[in-house]
Amino acid sequence: MPRQPVSHRALIGAVEGTLADFLACQIAALDTVDPALGGFARTARDLVMAGGKRIRPTFAYWGWRGVVGAAEPVEGVLPALGALELMHTFALVHDDLMDRSATRRGRPTAHRLFAAQHGDRFGDSAAILVGDLCLVWADQLLARAALPATTLLEVRARYDHMRVEAVAGQYLDVLGETDPASWSVERALLVARHKTASYTVQWPLGFGLALASSVRADLDEAYRVYGLAVGEAFQLRDDLLGVYGDPAVTGKPAGDDLRTGKPTTLLMLARQLATGAQLDELAAAGTTRQAEIIAATGAPAQVEEMIRARVEEGVAAIAEAPVRSDARAALIELATAATHRPA
Amino acid sequence: MPRQPVSHRALIGAVEGTLADFLACQIAALDTVDPALGGFARTARDLVMAGGKRIRPTFAYWGWRGVVGAAEPVEGVLPALGALELMHTFALVHDDLMDRSATRRGRPTAHRLFAAQHGDRFGDSAAILVGDLCLVWADQLLARAALPATTLLEVRARYDHMRVEAVAGQYLDVLGETDPASWSVERALLVARHKTASYTVQWPLGFGLALASSVRADLDEAYRVYGLAVGEAFQLRDDLLGVYGDPAVTGKPAGDDLRTGKPTTLLMLARQLATGAQLDELAAAGTTRQAEIIAATGAPAQVEEMIRARVEEGVAAIAEAPVRSDARAALIELATAATHRPA
Repeated sequence: MPRQPVSHRALIGAVEGTLADFLACQIAALDTVDPALGGFARTARDLVMAGGKRIRPTFAYWGWRGVVGAAEPVEGVLPALGALELMHTFALVHDDLMDRSATRRGRPTAHRLFAAQHGDRFGDSAAILVGDLCLVWADQLLARAALPATTLLEVRARYDHMRVEAVAGQYLDVLGETDPASWSVERALLVARHKTASYTVQWPLGFGLALASSVRADLDEAYRVYGLAVGEAFQLRDDLLGVYGDPAVTGKPAGDDLRTGKPTTLLMLARQLATGAQLDELAAAGTTRQAEIIAATGAPAQVEEMIRARVEEGVAAIAEAPVRSDARAALIELATAATHRPA
Repeated sequence: MPRQPVSHRALIGAVEGTLADFLACQIAALDTVDPALGGFARTARDLVMAGGKRIRPTFAYWGWRGVVGAAEPVEGVLPALGALELMHTFALVHDDLMDRSATRRGRPTAHRLFAAQHGDRFGDSAAILVGDLCLVWADQLLARAALPATTLLEVRARYDHMRVEAVAGQYLDVLGETDPASWSVERALLVARHKTASYTVQWPLGFGLALASSVRADLDEAYRVYGLAVGEAFQLRDDLLGVYGDPAVTGKPAGDDLRTGKPTTLLMLARQLATGAQLDELAAAGTTRQAEIIAATGAPAQVEEMIRARVEEGVAAIAEAPVRSDARAALIELATAATHRPA
């Protein structure tokens, strides 16, 4: 790949190449133990390589590049960037099982793929295990990063924080679905902060900064502010797409969040703003009509305003931060791209 | 705690103390985010602290002590020993969910505990997450070991191998249950090697050796031979306990393996040895009668002989190994204790 700065496409290509090489080794090793294990590992590989926005490696790359000069080649940190994507596959596979989602990116989810082989119960068990495998693989790939041992330990400490927050956020999400009536805008934003903001933007940036072996406290703080603000905006966009997104573009069924009763900020806000008549209709209507009622409450417009304010806050934090100029420009662009997207 | 060598009871007490301190910190941190997260973390703690044989920390301790003099205090490696136990809780919680086991050590399993709060679907989701949390916590606790950074990286590499083998072994186990008729003694022993031998004895010993910062190839090989032999014997004892164990002692329902149709070495061997009439009756009988038929085939006696041969092989490997004498004596004793136990 070319020297820095790389295009977004070249970066994603390099991360995916690192993942493909690593996964080929793991598949070969498991194949020699038992062909059934090779097949299991191939399913894991297909889930990892099925695409996606690769947003966490992208933020981690710019977090690193923010302090590392353009002459420094990216190769040494590619395994660490790839590890975030393996960890993300773990999270998606387990989340899809919990949500009982049948498709992801337009393809069958892991538990559905395995269920097609040996029935539903096997599908659930194998999905748990394929997620577990991806999480362990992430650690193995991370260990391949060409970094001083002390740097790698600091990177791991941040990675561990990120993983605890992702699990905690998902627990709150699952808990919220058991009793959406008792949920609130504040609680929905707490979930967004833990499940998405910290895990998708804040920690990947901080993880990237640690890869550079020199954590400046002022830049760390700027990344944190930017990460939480842009990450929350990212989740709020997800809330809107979960109700109003085009299934052909999102790869998920229309109105999926309404079907599962996910107590998103959008839905909590709509409940707050709704008239008594609207509330009654919301409880009884199908998902298409629910989407219309939510729009009539004015909640989507308020969520758009919340996104705008957060992007502005994030951009302001990074505009003043002691960060290299190419990274500043890229992060400002990403703040908008990640929060104004069709899928 | 006293200086080395410690009693087995003092060692387990020290590991459990390390776990309790670590878990108290994690609970406090999650409590400040949201009380619901504190409750989630407390359930995880109760699962970790519910007892068990702590066999993996024990083997890791002796793997370490095998090269480290009696004057070296154990405190620095206690977090690493505790990490194995957190990882084991992860494995048990996910395995119990896959096996749909209702009790473990005489108490409700994780998915049953959570199901009692908000129903079965929440129970399954929260059990997946509590397992995930324990796996991440294990990494965080491991990072607290007072070890040089390069030593910690070697320890982690071995830990990663152990985890991949545990996941792969569990996948084969789950796969075997989908079609027990096509399973064989060889395949059952392959599962035992990956799911139990490598994960329970071989890797904990090798992990312990790496904690000592000085991996001698000849000792590494002796540990490997001992670990696989004693580990397989451990699983074969489990197979016998799964059919003939006393529920009051094992904490599991009687005949649990027969109920779930687990294709253990014991059952595969019984099928090989059975007459046509015994095979027909085995397929139709309840678990009590199945246990009688299996005994009549002579399979339990053959499994006892397999255990004896493996313990002998393990003891021979460690008897000739370049290992400290107190560790040699302890490992010889453990080979018998771990494979002749009531639960």
